Amino acid sequence: MLTERAAALDAADPLAHVRARFLLPEGVVYLDGNSLGALPSAVPAAVEDAVHRQWGTDLIRSWNGNGWWEAPARTGDAVGRLIGAAPGQVVAGDSTSVQLFNTLLAAARMRPGRRLLLTDPDHFPTDQYIADSVGRLLGLEVRRVPAREAASVLAAEAGQVAVAAYAPVDYRTGELHDMAALTAAAHTAGALTHWDLCHAAGAMPVELDSMEADFAVGCGYKYLSGGPGAPAFAYVARRHQADFDHPLTGWHGHAEPFAMSGTYTPAADIARARVSTPPLLSLLALEAALTAFDGVEMTAVREKSLSLTGFFQECAGTLLDGLGFTLATPRDPARRGSQVALRHPEAYPLVAALTARGVIGDMRAPDLLRFGFNALYVTHGDVLRAVRELRAVVTGGEHLAPAFRTRPTVT
Amino acid sequence: MLTERAAALDAADPLAHVRARFLLPEGVVYLDGNSLGALPSAVPAAVEDAVHRQWGTDLIRSWNGNGWWEAPARTGDAVGRLIGAAPGQVVAGDSTSVQLFNTLLAAARMRPGRRLLLTDPDHFPTDQYIADSVGRLLGLEVRRVPAREAASVLAAEAGQVAVAAYAPVDYRTGELHDMAALTAAAHTAGALTHWDLCHAAGAMPVELDSMEADFAVGCGYKYLSGGPGAPAFAYVARRHQADFDHPLTGWHGHAEPFAMSGTYTPAADIARARVSTPPLLSLLALEAALTAFDGVEMTAVREKSLSLTGFFQECAGTLLDGLGFTLATPRDPARRGSQVALRHPEAYPLVAALTARGVIGDMRAPDLLRFGFNALYVTHGDVLRAVRELRAVVTGGEHLAPAFRTRPTVT
Repeated sequence: MLTERAAALDAADPLAHVRARFLLPEGVVYLDGNSLGALPSAVPAAVEDAVHRQWGTDLIRSWNGNGWWEAPARTGDAVGRLIGAAPGQVVAGDSTSVQLFNTLLAAARMRPGRRLLLTDPDHFPTDQYIADSVGRLLGLEVRRVPAREAASVLAAEAGQVAVAAYAPVDYRTGELHDMAALTAAAHTAGALTHWDLCHAAGAMPVELDSMEADFAVGCGYKYLSGGPGAPAFAYVARRHQADFDHPLTGWHGHAEPFAMSGTYTPAADIARARVSTPPLLSLLALEAALTAFDGVEMTAVREKSLSLTGFFQECAGTLLDGLGFTLATPRDPARRGSQVALRHPEAYPLVAALTARGVIGDMRAPDLLRFGFNALYVTHGDVLRAVRELRAVVTGGEHLAPAFRTRPTVT
Repeated sequence: MLTERAAALDAADPLAHVRARFLLPEGVVYLDGNSLGALPSAVPAAVEDAVHRQWGTDLIRSWNGNGWWEAPARTGDAVGRLIGAAPGQVVAGDSTSVQLFNTLLAAARMRPGRRLLLTDPDHFPTDQYIADSVGRLLGLEVRRVPAREAASVLAAEAGQVAVAAYAPVDYRTGELHDMAALTAAAHTAGALTHWDLCHAAGAMPVELDSMEADFAVGCGYKYLSGGPGAPAFAYVARRHQADFDHPLTGWHGHAEPFAMSGTYTPAADIARARVSTPPLLSLLALEAALTAFDGVEMTAVREKSLSLTGFFQECAGTLLDGLGFTLATPRDPARRGSQVALRHPEAYPLVAALTARGVIGDMRAPDLLRFGFNALYVTHGDVLRAVRELRAVVTGGEHLAPAFRTRPTVT
């Protein structure tokens, strides 16, 4: 019956045709697009062109002739369309950590005299480390307050909080927080918001402009499928650009970069958020990857994503019942992102054994199995196969084999 | 006679065979490798493998299976060999500006209580901007002191200078400064050195370890030919690694990155200089590009580089005499890097007209024509042709054509 349900859901899927925009390996069910997105079909030719024609033949002339100079803003605008940002507010380049540091420090500088920086104790580690680094440099206290308590702390500490730095989606459990509500609470308290969209951009609608978000960053290699270590993006709301006082003052952000002045005069617009020469092969790969979203509405992505995660929960409820798993992700669709996490004490060997069966998810210590669903290429049939293979692994005790119990360097 | 000289020099060139390790466009003389290095032959296959097999097929498993996790240190060590750094002191990743900020701020933190940061008023703009940014964050006065006066200021201000941040090669004139002498002067004054090796790495021997340099950064896309926006590198001398207290505390630099702790505990070794996921397509391109240096000694590179720049000066002295050019680069081989700069009031249209003739250099406002000589692929024949074409442009008045007088966005 689950087989028929999966087939019917896939037959009715308005995004079914988008899967052909990705080059997926034969026989693999890929549920780790929340860590590294699959390869979009448009990328190989774009990269080959970047290497052979643009770099190899046109050489330095590509800065003008092939639009390299404009690539960060052009790619930024393409990301902007997916996160509710009108053109001229997003740049792509550098890593998420770097963008995070640059924008968070700039945000905190916009609220001089306030002593608190709020962040989530469940935030991705780098976000916490960078918040601590920014706090140390500017003399701010970094207070870790869970997302669900942030609004009340903002109200209680009105006038003291400079920035609230949060993510809409918990990277481990996939729990979804209410961005608009937290943004409103921050503004009521006179604070600014800083959003990490790594697990949201490309996975669901994010309405930065309409919720009046202040700053945001996100990575290019998860749901945007821009390739390993694809450049990140930074959003600086237009109303803040003239006051954006950031520490990474590279020459590409200068008002007149080619004047080669010894004094930094920032560009008037989003260009000031540029740092310096971006890694162009990676950036052009990301730009090509984003064409997989052509004609795709984020509301349709969200609808399918919820259908996939809901179906996964349904299959798990039926097929994994009594096998030692508990669900870490909220059942309420309004409270979950685009992933489902299961807890199991044997998470690592289970994921390893499942990978051997061609179903790729990942794990996070100590006990989480994470499955990410990119609505652009995952099918309900994939979901059902994944749960069935996981059941087979557990019931067959395959994860008890020694080969699956030794952890490599990186997991 | 110059023709015969060029032929004889090329015939005797011990690095002549290395040119075949680059894919140079037919008919082009490329003298802008100090801005963007030419495409090494090893790169296209490496990038194709990275895209198709590593990303497309192996997907997330590449972190272990294809050594992605180790790529920053592995590539760092490969750069280290070219700059006199023993293994375990260099990482690759992020942009030069970012590496500069991270290491310069960490260096300044190692000299608490000192109030001065010295840098060069002729330093590349970003280096000056970032020094100002670091100075502002840490409450240091940034004093601009030309390289030739730095030693005396260090002596006069002994006890007050935290860091001296310089480049061995002036990016405009190609003038070479004495790194070892400045390093020694800094140490005598109790200061640390920070070197920007953008125009030195891959162009000449740089003996970081033996001169007891402290910190250095450099870019991957000039003489290392790593591709447009190739990741930069950072050198942290082993003796400073345990005290390296940097602001860009990303999770890849954590002692136990996969423990996903909310508190940053830096790795004990050079790994702490890692920030986060590097742009892997660009990084793997850089790694492949570095194989062009296999079996090549930097002393041989320097010898040929001096031969090329010397021959350029010789040809210019003969062929451009009386045509309005002056030489901006020292004639003394001990005082020049791997480029020659000429001054001419019509620098921009001259470079544009020269490019139309297939000879690619670049210009820096207001009046510098820059020609960079990568000893791995430039020949003395190229040098002679470049000067002859430049003579033809000037004597024919080709640069007076309207097409060469309108400057595009990026020059």
